[in-house]
Order: sequence, then structure tokens, then C-alpha cells
Amino acid sequence: MDFNKMLDEYKKILKIPSISAKATGINETASYLNSLLKNMGIKGEIMHTSGNPVVYGEYFIDAPRTLLVYNHYDVQPIDPENKWTHAPFGATEENGRIYARGAADNKGTLMARIFGVMEAIKDNELHVNLKFLYEGEEEIGSPHLKDFIIKNKNRFAADDVIMEGSQIGEENRPVIALGVKGLLYIELKSRTGTTDLHSSLAAIAPSPAWNLINALKSIQDCEKVQIPGFYDNITPLCNKDMNILKDYPFNIEKMRDSYGLKNFKFNEKDNLIRELFTSPTCNIAGIISGYIEEGTKTVLPAEAMAKIDFRLVPDQDPETIFKSMKGYLHNLGFDLEINALGMENPVRTAPDTELAQKMISSAIQTYGSKPIIMLNSPGTQPMALFTRELGIKNAISAIGVGDNLSKAHAPNESISIENFKLAVEHTKNFLSKFQ
Amino acid sequence: MDFNKMLDEYKKILKIPSISAKATGINETASYLNSLLKNMGIKGEIMHTSGNPVVYGEYFIDAPRTLLVYNHYDVQPIDPENKWTHAPFGATEENGRIYARGAADNKGTLMARIFGVMEAIKDNELHVNLKFLYEGEEEIGSPHLKDFIIKNKNRFAADDVIMEGSQIGEENRPVIALGVKGLLYIELKSRTGTTDLHSSLAAIAPSPAWNLINALKSIQDCEKVQIPGFYDNITPLCNKDMNILKDYPFNIEKMRDSYGLKNFKFNEKDNLIRELFTSPTCNIAGIISGYIEEGTKTVLPAEAMAKIDFRLVPDQDPETIFKSMKGYLHNLGFDLEINALGMENPVRTAPDTELAQKMISSAIQTYGSKPIIMLNSPGTQPMALFTRELGIKNAISAIGVGDNLSKAHAPNESISIENFKLAVEHTKNFLSKFQ
Repeated sequence: MDFNKMLDEYKKILKIPSISAKATGINETASYLNSLLKNMGIKGEIMHTSGNPVVYGEYFIDAPRTLLVYNHYDVQPIDPENKWTHAPFGATEENGRIYARGAADNKGTLMARIFGVMEAIKDNELHVNLKFLYEGEEEIGSPHLKDFIIKNKNRFAADDVIMEGSQIGEENRPVIALGVKGLLYIELKSRTGTTDLHSSLAAIAPSPAWNLINALKSIQDCEKVQIPGFYDNITPLCNKDMNILKDYPFNIEKMRDSYGLKNFKFNEKDNLIRELFTSPTCNIAGIISGYIEEGTKTVLPAEAMAKIDFRLVPDQDPETIFKSMKGYLHNLGFDLEINALGMENPVRTAPDTELAQKMISSAIQTYGSKPIIMLNSPGTQPMALFTRELGIKNAISAIGVGDNLSKAHAPNESISIENFKLAVEHTKNFLSKFQ
Repeated sequence: MDFNKMLDEYKKILKIPSISAKATGINETASYLNSLLKNMGIKGEIMHTSGNPVVYGEYFIDAPRTLLVYNHYDVQPIDPENKWTHAPFGATEENGRIYARGAADNKGTLMARIFGVMEAIKDNELHVNLKFLYEGEEEIGSPHLKDFIIKNKNRFAADDVIMEGSQIGEENRPVIALGVKGLLYIELKSRTGTTDLHSSLAAIAPSPAWNLINALKSIQDCEKVQIPGFYDNITPLCNKDMNILKDYPFNIEKMRDSYGLKNFKFNEKDNLIRELFTSPTCNIAGIISGYIEEGTKTVLPAEAMAKIDFRLVPDQDPETIFKSMKGYLHNLGFDLEINALGMENPVRTAPDTELAQKMISSAIQTYGSKPIIMLNSPGTQPMALFTRELGIKNAISAIGVGDNLSKAHAPNESISIENFKLAVEHTKNFLSKFQ
């Protein structure tokens, strides 16, 4: 297919405002994708879920292995709209870049991969069965994906999966994440009465804020999580893992400044990299109690609330940790409401698996430089849905079109056309390795 | 003076909406009071401050002692206005009560005391020189009172002072507070960067929320304040103090329910009373960081803030404690912005001082029952301004007209006319003891 035709199709889907949070353009985008797959000879289907439809495609060639490709066709809202210098759904081309909401996240990656598949078919270089799963609710937290996947377990069965969520990193090197950290998101609420009191009563009335703070310090103290068993199931790092960490490019000053930080927690680059990829975290995402405006109010609040997100590393299990935490706080005598608002398991695919090796070698072939390899992303994606619910053995995040100028989720999202082209090529080269 | 005339005058001042927060009716009320003093033969004067005027009066009889009477003529705002069933400035009489904003706090007390003075003069029972200080900014935190008092130090010099802030308590017994707890109100701010970050960076970026929580736990742990020297200057209780505590009426179930609490911190009545009046507190009045709405957001906040109010007991000094806390947190290595938003010293007048004894015996004479005596109020008033800045030796809070139905600061504030009458009488009886 002529590259300009690929760009034309890409621009077409960019022009449809498929904002899941606003319920706009969803069915139109699903229909567009379904037709696109059909036009390219891929068996496509719009599958209904309890929420937005999934577009599902299959291309079977009786190969010994099957690869599942996950992307999403919904996009973030465009606000603040007045900060856009290019129309959010105009797909404007300028100085080698294309501007639109979803250009990088995730329509660019989705489309580049389809065209890569087409190129591989055309050149007889496709040697793996393919399944495509395009979700329409990723940007609102994939509320129906788990149930949908479990319900269609056999349909989506595969040997490997490639997820979205990769990009072009430092020195124009593609990023390959061999997994993800898991997540346990909890909310703690302490309530001691029905109404805020005059703070002179603090001498005799219990304080929900202190109760909560004492609980938080029981959960983490001296920079270590104190929940029994928290660290028990962490997979030790092997030499290959250590080598991947050692190779990770990390410019301390540049990163520190780009994050607007005064300091990192550690001074040594090796420490920073090891912690970023292999340490679980216990982050206070939010805390609130009492009077938070300017000036003074002498009040003893009636309630206090905190949200904690734990990032987990293989093979910590959020469910097990949550249960342990509840028992632990209960045994310490804390009177708290404890709710889990999110759980995702960590995933790490070994760097010497076939899937990882094919992805790495095709990246070198395509980009002419070594990819940036992450043992796992420091963030979380629902990768474990595929590995745990579908039993897919290997999962990685790779082949993305965004770069450090892409501004995913922000105004003036864009990608470089060159990166789009390279992602098409990378897909094709990757698929050709399956023979 | 005929009691109905007293009520008429009282209603007049109630009808002037002297809301300091809204800057309404202030000058009109000051003028009214100035005229009232003059009409009663008291040398009155409107004194300018950097804020609302003070109305000052003097009645000198060449007595050996001088008593300063402090009240305030400003009132709280009336919102929520739609909750008032009587006009907020109507001074409506109904079922033996008078309804108006300021009826109890503090115009009722102010007026009853004036009339008590008049009665004492009329019956030749006044045996003490009097100074009257009526403030117009109490309800907005007395921002100019300290400077004003220091500037007019000689003018306001006295042997004793009676403050506002008393009321009629359980079993219709008048409350006499022999002092107040002090206050140290601080704000702690932790800032680690310029912008909130994705929480996956919690592995390497410092957390202002944890920093703050660690600081809070360094300030108080195991229910004890850990600031060096915090407890050093606490005056030990003597037997007389213990007897006053023992006599304090405290119905655990009734209080607990009235505060809407599940439980108090202690089960024993004696403990509750001792803590309420004689223990310093370290209360978290407010804390905020990060995401506090419904649901989840995986964010590492850039800043966190907490407000703490310490209630102090004699002779803890807020300034000394604040300095010690700053040094202590600094030595522990905390990177925090620490500001003091309020400081007031505690005051306790010994129960066997002449002032206390006169107040107690006149209360028994007037009410026919033993007054409820507090070693000091569990709350704070700027009493130490008078004792420390003016060097007045004895200060107490007594002779108030509000009762447990009065709803000071809330809609439908009211007092019982009978309590107004008794406060007039109590003032007169109290003054008669100075011979």
C-alpha cells in the first residue's frame, strides 16, 4: 500500500471524535475500523460489551503460533480546548507531524500496526495467526474489559500478546516494555462522629485524622511497607534482568528538571533505575480531613480519608496484599473503612523468551539502534488480564508511534510522520520473525 | 432602673446589625454604646484602632481596686439566613426568650453587666473602680486588639479583669471559668516539585504527603507530643485544683450523644474531665494533598499541607514551643515550610484568689446553687492579652446570659429573659463584694 494512502486512512480515523468520556463518535469509529479490517481481507466483527463495543479481527494462516494485538480506539477529552493551536479532530499536517487528539494515544499505533500487517501479508512475510482486539473504553479505565475477556476466553486465546503503551524514547530509540507493574488502589476512611467539633474537644474526642495517619504509618514506616507478607513473593532479579537495568538510559538532571522536582529520592543513577523498575511503591495519592482553606479554623474533623496506590512488582498479588492489609490493620485495632478501588497484577516477560527476542531484533533491524528495554513499565496496564485471565504466556508493550513531543492526554497531541512509517515497518519486520 | 426599660435598651442594640465580617452597623453600635454609657453617668469614649473602634468607659470611685470588664459588640454573620424562624435583628420576644443574632454572644452579657453596674451604683454597692472595654472585632479574630492594648497599656491598667465567654450550664448553674487554655496554631507545607506527577514515579520521586505524615508523627507519637520541652512548663495541679475537677458535672452518655460521637477517648469520667481541662492537645485541624474526589487517580502530588492546633495549659508558652518545634523538625532533616498562624498563652487564676472567691460567692447568692467552676476553659480566648500585656493579675470568664439553647453563631440565637435578669443581679452582687 502506498504510504500516502496509509496516512489518508490514519487521518480519517483521527477525524472521528471518539471520546469515551463524552460518549461521542464511538460507534462511528467502531464501524470505520470494522470496514477497514474487512477491506484489508481481515475477518472483522463488532462485538457488544456492557459498555462501548469491541472491534475484533482475526487473520488465520494455520501457523503454529497465534499473536493477539491489543489497541484502543477511544481517546481522551480535548479540554482545555482553548489551548489547542490545531483543530483537535482536524488531523493537520505541519512540519512532518500530524496533530490530533488520539494521534499518538492510541490511533497512531493501532493504524501503523494494521498497515504493517498488510505489508507483511503482501510480501509473504506473515508467519503467525493474528487476533486484533480494539477496545473503546481504555480512557475511562476499561470498566468492562475484564468481564468481556473472561466471557470470550476461547475466542481471544493466543500464545503472545502485544499491548499498546509504548513509544519512541531517548535518542529516537523505540521503547520495549517487557511487562508492567501491578496496582492496588485503596481508600481508607476514618469516621469518629457525625459532625465536626470545636477543637477544644480534641482533649477527649478521638481524631479521625490522627487515626488515619497512625494507620498510614502502620502501613509504611521507615520507607518500607509493613503489611505482613508484602515483599514475600517478589521475584528475585537474575543477571539478564540486571543487564537490562544497566543498559537503561537515564539522565538524572534532565529527568529531574523535566519533572519539575527539587530532588530524586536517590542520588545514584543505578539506584534510581533499579527502584523505578523493580521496587513496589506505597504512594499517598490523596488525603483530606478538616479545614484546608487559608487561615485558621479550630476544628476537630469528624472524618478523614486517604487514597493509596501501591505499584506492585512480579509476583506480588494485589488481592493477597489487600487481605493481609485488612487483617493487619484490624489486628492493630484500627477502626477504619477500607476499600479496594483497583487491582491489577504485575507482569514481566523474560527477556530471553521468543516474543521478546523477536521484538528486540526487529526493532534493531527497523531503527538501526538498540531499543530501550524496560524490565517492566513503572506504570500499570491491564496486561495481566491477558496473561492471567486468558492464560497468554508472554506479553509485552512495544511498537508505539508517540515520542517525547507527543503530548498524549494534553492539548496539541501529535506524532512524527517518520515515526508512523517506522512503526509500520517495525510491525512488518516483527511479524516476519515468526517463521 | 425598671427591668422593662433594661429589656428595651437591650432590644435596641440587638436591632443594629453589627456584623464585623460584613462591616455593617459597626459605627452605629459603637455610638449607641457610647451614648448609653454617657446616659448612665459613665465617662464613655469611642477610641479608634487600626480596625473597628473600641468603646471605652471609666467609672472611678477612688476605690483601692480597679476591675476591667471586657465584652464585644460585634456579632457573627447570619447565614444561613433561611434557617432563621425569627428575624435575625428583630429582637423578638417569645415564650420568655429573646431571639436575635448577638442575643447571647455577646450583647446580652454586655448589656446585663452595664445594668448590674447601674443597680450597684444606685444602691451604693459599688466598691471598685471600673473600666469597660468593648471590642468590635472579636468575631473576626480580634486582629487589632493586641496592638491596641499595648499602645494603651496605662489606660487599661487594672487589678482584675472579667472576660466574656461564660454561660449558664447544666442544672441552670452559672459557669465560671478561672482561665483559658492557650493556643499554638501552625501550618506545615511540604513541596517537592512544581507539578503533580504520575504515581509510577513514586519509586524515585519524593512524596510530600509522606514527608508531611512523617513530620506529623514526629510531632506526636503514642498520644504524646514529642517536641522537646513541650511538657516542661506545665503547672502541677494542687489539691484545690483537683477538687474543682472532681466537682465538674459531666454526663458521659449525654455529652457523647450531643457531640454525635461514637466514643470518647476515655471511659472514666474522672479521666475525661482531667484531660478536658488540664491536658494540652495536638489536633490536626486540617490536612490535604493530592486527589480527594470520588474514585481513583494515580497521582504523586507536588505538595501537602496540614494545620495543627495545640491547646496549651499553664504555663506552656506558644512562642517557646513553636521555636522548639522548628528546631526539632529541622534537626530531624525535614524539608518543610512551618508557619505559626496563631499564638495565645494559657491563663489560670487560682480558685482562692479574691476575684474568684467574690465571683463564686456572688453566684451562689444570685442563683441559689453552686456555680460550675472550670479550672480554665478547654477553649481559648485572648485572656493572656490582659494578663501578660497589661499585667493584670487575675482574669476570669463569668457572668454570661447564654444557655444550652442559645445557639450562638447559629440561626435563631436566643437567651432566656430570666437569665438576663439574673446576670444583672449577679453583676450587682459581684460588685458589692469589693468592699
